[in-house]
Amino acid sequence: MAPSPGSILLSVTGFDPAVWRDEIERAAPGRTVVTEPDGPVDASIHYAVVWKQRPGILNRLPNLKAIFSIGAGVDHIFADPDVPDVPIVRVVADDLTERMSEYVVWQVLDHHRKGPRYRRQQAEKIWHEDRMQPAARDVTVGILGLGVLGLDAARKLAALGFEVAGWSRTAKKIEGVATFAGDDGLDGFLAISDIVVCLLPLTPKTKGILSKPLFAKMKRRGPLGPAVLINAGRGDLQNEADILAALENGWLGAASLDVFQAEPLPETSPLWTHPRVTITPHAAATSVPAALIPPMIAQIESHERGEPLTNLVDRDAGY
Amino acid sequence: MAPSPGSILLSVTGFDPAVWRDEIERAAPGRTVVTEPDGPVDASIHYAVVWKQRPGILNRLPNLKAIFSIGAGVDHIFADPDVPDVPIVRVVADDLTERMSEYVVWQVLDHHRKGPRYRRQQAEKIWHEDRMQPAARDVTVGILGLGVLGLDAARKLAALGFEVAGWSRTAKKIEGVATFAGDDGLDGFLAISDIVVCLLPLTPKTKGILSKPLFAKMKRRGPLGPAVLINAGRGDLQNEADILAALENGWLGAASLDVFQAEPLPETSPLWTHPRVTITPHAAATSVPAALIPPMIAQIESHERGEPLTNLVDRDAGY
Repeated sequence: MAPSPGSILLSVTGFDPAVWRDEIERAAPGRTVVTEPDGPVDASIHYAVVWKQRPGILNRLPNLKAIFSIGAGVDHIFADPDVPDVPIVRVVADDLTERMSEYVVWQVLDHHRKGPRYRRQQAEKIWHEDRMQPAARDVTVGILGLGVLGLDAARKLAALGFEVAGWSRTAKKIEGVATFAGDDGLDGFLAISDIVVCLLPLTPKTKGILSKPLFAKMKRRGPLGPAVLINAGRGDLQNEADILAALENGWLGAASLDVFQAEPLPETSPLWTHPRVTITPHAAATSVPAALIPPMIAQIESHERGEPLTNLVDRDAGY
Repeated sequence: MAPSPGSILLSVTGFDPAVWRDEIERAAPGRTVVTEPDGPVDASIHYAVVWKQRPGILNRLPNLKAIFSIGAGVDHIFADPDVPDVPIVRVVADDLTERMSEYVVWQVLDHHRKGPRYRRQQAEKIWHEDRMQPAARDVTVGILGLGVLGLDAARKLAALGFEVAGWSRTAKKIEGVATFAGDDGLDGFLAISDIVVCLLPLTPKTKGILSKPLFAKMKRRGPLGPAVLINAGRGDLQNEADILAALENGWLGAASLDVFQAEPLPETSPLWTHPRVTITPHAAATSVPAALIPPMIAQIESHERGEPLTNLVDRDAGY
């Protein structure tokens, strides 16, 4: 008889745990799902499925073999200073990738096709076509971060005719994309990008990257006016005071922000009412249990059969 | 010595003729461009470049060999009852096609990703993610009209993950698109389409097709609620009173309209202020002289060398 499979810890903040528990139980019948470990130490738990786990909870699991994130990014895991030294698996799922690209293409097109302007005109019953509308091929969309999400967005933007540039920590070569890498490559990337889309992971190195020094190097005069910022990465990649200042001094033409330094965005934030800021409530790419849990359980089962885990986080890089 | 080339008549309403004249003179140096024919009959003119030409003007040209439209659609030509029986060339240009697909994808994504809802929430400083957001693969976009424009939009929507259906007058088979044809096929098409995009030509048969009988057969309950209408074809394809009624009785969830029965849309139209109507001022796919004139002149020159014209209008079909 095979040994009984290890239990799974579920520790998620900001999501309804019941929905995730149901999905795990459906995908892994017979396996115990624990939300509150039993006592100071719980040896039964072999895997943890987390989103902003309760700090310290993972350290109480002596037999923990791997940690799985249920959303893009793993910075939420490292926010807990006591993360045991076991493999961390990043979520890679077509569903999540496709949703993120939907958001990116949607917001790029909304700026490219002057959505805010036409909505303002409609409110004022003004019939006026902008005959200076550039074509997609006249506009370069620059993507900060060329992981799975950045690559998919790049491919879909290129299919719509946009010129696409990309920047990543380490050099990458991608057909049809003008790529730049590292600190030295950032200026060249910003010099050609009419719309900058941020899909970077949050690490000590990227924290606050979307701030004054970067905005100062953005394009001032492109076919859409000053460059546009779209951030669907993490709120702590951006400095919101600097975004507001850059919108005022002409460094930034507009911004679409899905993430914020504090979430929910406080009512007092001037971003809410800024006429050139589009706000969505961290909704760019929602995590859908039915899409994410089955491949996670499949990884757990193959790991138990002795196969290696995939999509592992590099702890040194922080993502 | 070759005979001097025929002159070109330019008769455009709603566009600045000077810009088009300049472009023709740049593309066809040495050729005469006429805007007001000289006297009751002008034998020098061989080709006409038109948009809503002055009625009767074409009938004064005994040596007219072909008529070229500078925008998608040729209904504006037939609005003149005295169109001589010469070949009419429809504009087919990547620039125009790509702009139309930009508009279609933009508006499809804006409805799919709940743009109007999130903008309303922003205005009220409400932070609330719609966790019922379907994925693109859960949504079927149905395209009325599978010409050059409809096919390009279909391909780009499919690349973003949407299910795509299409309806055309005559049966077509398109990889990855559920196709329907003719009067008999319309019900089946409407039964599966969550978003209906109209890119039909305006003909006596299609006039007013977007009206109560069609809305009555649209999907009432889909992943986005009642079906959404996007019309970027012609205003006279739609009955605006019926659109307003269908928005009220739950047959239509929302509408994006780029074209109207009367343009500019009168200030008195209730469409301007309807909270579920998105209005753009016939701006979906603007005609850019630098993109459209050079291939037109190339066609004229090859025709003069005895080669056949392409992209000809079928007068019986009306497009």
